[in-house]
Amino acid sequence: MELHGKNLIGGNPVASSDKTFQAIDPQRSKSLDPDFFEASENEIDLSLDLAEEAFQSFGQSDPSERARFLDLIADEVEALGDALIERAHLETALPMARLTGERGRTCNQLRMFANLIREGSWVGARIDTAIPDREPLPKPDIRRMLQPLGPVVVFGVSNFPLAFSAAGGDSASALAAGCPVVLKAHPAHPGTSELVTRALLKAAETTGMPQGVFSMVHGVSHEVGLRLVTHPLTQAVGFTGSQKAGRALFDAAARRAKPIPFYAEMGSVNPVFVLSGTLEERLESFVQGYIGSLTLGVGQFCTNPGLLVALAGENWDLLMHQLSRGIEALGCGTMLHDGIRAAYEEGVDRLKEQEGVRLVAESEAKPNAEKTEAQTFLFETSAETFLGEAFLKEEVFGPCGLAIKCKTPEEMVSVAKAMEGSLTATVHGDEESLSEAAPLLSCLRRKAGRVIFNGFPTGVEVCPSMMHGGPYPATTDSGVTSVGTAAIERFARPVAYQDFPDNVLPAELRNKNERGIWRLVNNRFTQEDIEI
Amino acid sequence: MELHGKNLIGGNPVASSDKTFQAIDPQRSKSLDPDFFEASENEIDLSLDLAEEAFQSFGQSDPSERARFLDLIADEVEALGDALIERAHLETALPMARLTGERGRTCNQLRMFANLIREGSWVGARIDTAIPDREPLPKPDIRRMLQPLGPVVVFGVSNFPLAFSAAGGDSASALAAGCPVVLKAHPAHPGTSELVTRALLKAAETTGMPQGVFSMVHGVSHEVGLRLVTHPLTQAVGFTGSQKAGRALFDAAARRAKPIPFYAEMGSVNPVFVLSGTLEERLESFVQGYIGSLTLGVGQFCTNPGLLVALAGENWDLLMHQLSRGIEALGCGTMLHDGIRAAYEEGVDRLKEQEGVRLVAESEAKPNAEKTEAQTFLFETSAETFLGEAFLKEEVFGPCGLAIKCKTPEEMVSVAKAMEGSLTATVHGDEESLSEAAPLLSCLRRKAGRVIFNGFPTGVEVCPSMMHGGPYPATTDSGVTSVGTAAIERFARPVAYQDFPDNVLPAELRNKNERGIWRLVNNRFTQEDIEI
Repeated sequence: MELHGKNLIGGNPVASSDKTFQAIDPQRSKSLDPDFFEASENEIDLSLDLAEEAFQSFGQSDPSERARFLDLIADEVEALGDALIERAHLETALPMARLTGERGRTCNQLRMFANLIREGSWVGARIDTAIPDREPLPKPDIRRMLQPLGPVVVFGVSNFPLAFSAAGGDSASALAAGCPVVLKAHPAHPGTSELVTRALLKAAETTGMPQGVFSMVHGVSHEVGLRLVTHPLTQAVGFTGSQKAGRALFDAAARRAKPIPFYAEMGSVNPVFVLSGTLEERLESFVQGYIGSLTLGVGQFCTNPGLLVALAGENWDLLMHQLSRGIEALGCGTMLHDGIRAAYEEGVDRLKEQEGVRLVAESEAKPNAEKTEAQTFLFETSAETFLGEAFLKEEVFGPCGLAIKCKTPEEMVSVAKAMEGSLTATVHGDEESLSEAAPLLSCLRRKAGRVIFNGFPTGVEVCPSMMHGGPYPATTDSGVTSVGTAAIERFARPVAYQDFPDNVLPAELRNKNERGIWRLVNNRFTQEDIEI
Repeated sequence: MELHGKNLIGGNPVASSDKTFQAIDPQRSKSLDPDFFEASENEIDLSLDLAEEAFQSFGQSDPSERARFLDLIADEVEALGDALIERAHLETALPMARLTGERGRTCNQLRMFANLIREGSWVGARIDTAIPDREPLPKPDIRRMLQPLGPVVVFGVSNFPLAFSAAGGDSASALAAGCPVVLKAHPAHPGTSELVTRALLKAAETTGMPQGVFSMVHGVSHEVGLRLVTHPLTQAVGFTGSQKAGRALFDAAARRAKPIPFYAEMGSVNPVFVLSGTLEERLESFVQGYIGSLTLGVGQFCTNPGLLVALAGENWDLLMHQLSRGIEALGCGTMLHDGIRAAYEEGVDRLKEQEGVRLVAESEAKPNAEKTEAQTFLFETSAETFLGEAFLKEEVFGPCGLAIKCKTPEEMVSVAKAMEGSLTATVHGDEESLSEAAPLLSCLRRKAGRVIFNGFPTGVEVCPSMMHGGPYPATTDSGVTSVGTAAIERFARPVAYQDFPDNVLPAELRNKNERGIWRLVNNRFTQEDIEI
């Protein structure tokens, strides 16, 4: 399949703009063919007009039809075979094995949402039947369920070219809900996005989906993203990326004449706390685990454990020593693109220059800028210095850890309190020390969306209970997750029907529970029919 | 109980500001004793500091303790007896019978939330148990549930001095979730707010709640509200009021360094659509119902049916005639305060001056400005004029209806499409015409939170299925409701625990389901224990 580099709008390749760009192979700092065409204003408008048109039928389509569509997308993505993995590898330098795994996750997500909507209970049906003879006023019959919002804009993500891009979690959950999607392909892997989008469109055609159900637009300039977010037809946005870009777009969404939900996941520091006594028994496995998590994917995960908090004394020196030994032996890794590499270097340089922060270790292999490489670093500082310096609380995106030495468990709680909101927080200890760490846990519960015991934050399980989200600046809405089945809830809202005839109600709300979904009927959870 | 007019912060009356104001009896345009003290900046800060402190224990309190607190608030509000109703009547001119009913609703809401958290399933527990031998990676144990956000600011509401003020739905749902509340009392009924807050604080004392669990601050100036919304410790805000005030505060919340959810319900036009053939059979009951809903509470309900959309021909003239007859016979009603009355008059004057809009009827009794009275009006216009004029799509808060004459059912759909987001939309017809009105229904589903068949939008049932919310400008977040049990979800967010020892988990997530709540365990709804 040869890449054409065009936007794909309503199923058709279009390219009216003379603004083009190319993907870069970060391992060679070399441009890759073909040229990609930035979407014009008209093309963006057209993609949303078609999405709105598609919503008229797609938003009310039978869930089993949408499920078939999602399943087929997974099949078609798989059918792309090695060509997809090879192009993704060229554009992102992510290892082939990682990309193969990520493709598996992507297809699993699509099938998971297909199963979720086939089962159907996600709509949260609630029914209160009428009491016509209630005094002083009759009680009406009210039935409510989630219904899709309308056209959704999804931003492709640099560090997940498959699982959070064209047919990734945001698109899959929006489509599952019944929302057409306009994808802003990430300019770092436009070819990968084109391949996946073409697979997706093939599935759309086979299953007879309306023309505008999915469009992909390209863009390197901020204007493309801004126009998508501020377009009057856009009803919600899924975004994963930097805090700077996320906040700028969040502000634009909030300033609209009609504000819309802008779900941004902007990464975080993901602190790891080591409770008293932990390291005596399992220093080696901890060190191995921490370094593995810190350097996984060249540190380019939103759940990368950038902060390590432990107690002075308590084997602190031994911990630093072992971490150093592990880090020094590491090679360099190629980052996703030069922008990320430059920002990483800048963050590391700031740490190097920061008074009260000491460089503990760096990998001995020196990075080659031509290969967009990054070196792994470990710094240490005191709790006092950490508490006093705002920038130390910010994420450095890449394989860089900052260890914070606390004099007492109380100081550890102060450090936790001073931290920014995070996707995750991790605690290492034994069951006894964990039980005694109630003040720390109360604090972490407020700072993070997921709290982990004796593990590491990278490797986000895709399942119903997953919470991938957290207090600002980790996300712009700590009430939702972008991973797991609950991600679908971002793209729907409740609508209640009062005193509607049974046959005009959506199937999920009729007396006969044909779909067998769980419903809250007169305040009781049940799968039963309603006898009237 | 004599009113002291002070702010109530951490249970104590405080009044350090020299800025005071008085409530006004709108029926007599007369100031009422005592003086009320606007909260100083320090007092606002103190209220939030104490709320944050209270959250440390209250946020993790046993639900049965919070339920007892809520039940007791209801008891104490009832124990205020006639004194409460009389003061509320003086301050708002709402009829005693209406206020007595509203007190009943207020207490029912408190007890409803008490029952909700006693039952406990609202936390939405989801559990996926570990699969240690899964290949290629072990599956961790993940368990998630809703947990409270922290200190919440609630704005008291002018048109519901009891059910949406001190101990109203926003406070009750926030407290039920485990969030301490700082109430901004509405300056139109500060005495009512003081009485209810004192009852609430009595319940807090009896049940041993922490000092800062509830504070009330007074204020007439915008600065008080703004400081509450922008205070770094505030985690969420519940607001009901005008679009102007709501949007200004929403913008302030979105502009914060750390944005917070600002849940504003800002009223709406609540269109009523009359399908072809409807009026032949029941013109009289329709006219009676519409006028009743339009003038209920002097038109001061957010669900007031301000727009009436019907077909030309089809008894249009007869409908206008009957509506006129009904409206002309009406007396005048006293509005809540002179600000609302003045805004109403302004809205009516704009309609009178609008080209293409015709005055159909006005109540013959002329309003007395000294008594803050409002007259009922009915205007009519063509669909064409309505479509072309933005201001006609805005709410006129008060007993004023605008009838829109459509030439065809298609034009009716165009009118629906052009409407702003609304709390409700109503359709009158028979089952057959409703089935044929699919295009209209598809549109209304996107425009409103609640769609009503053959009823009227006022009278919002408080129950699990209620959706009181809708697309902007009806609310700032169409995904939530401010009425019914689901209102509690505004003040909590999911937190996931990964690989936690059973005894350190919150009770709701432990293997033994001691509370007997509904949980999604390995993707299956169940009340059973988990066998490990």
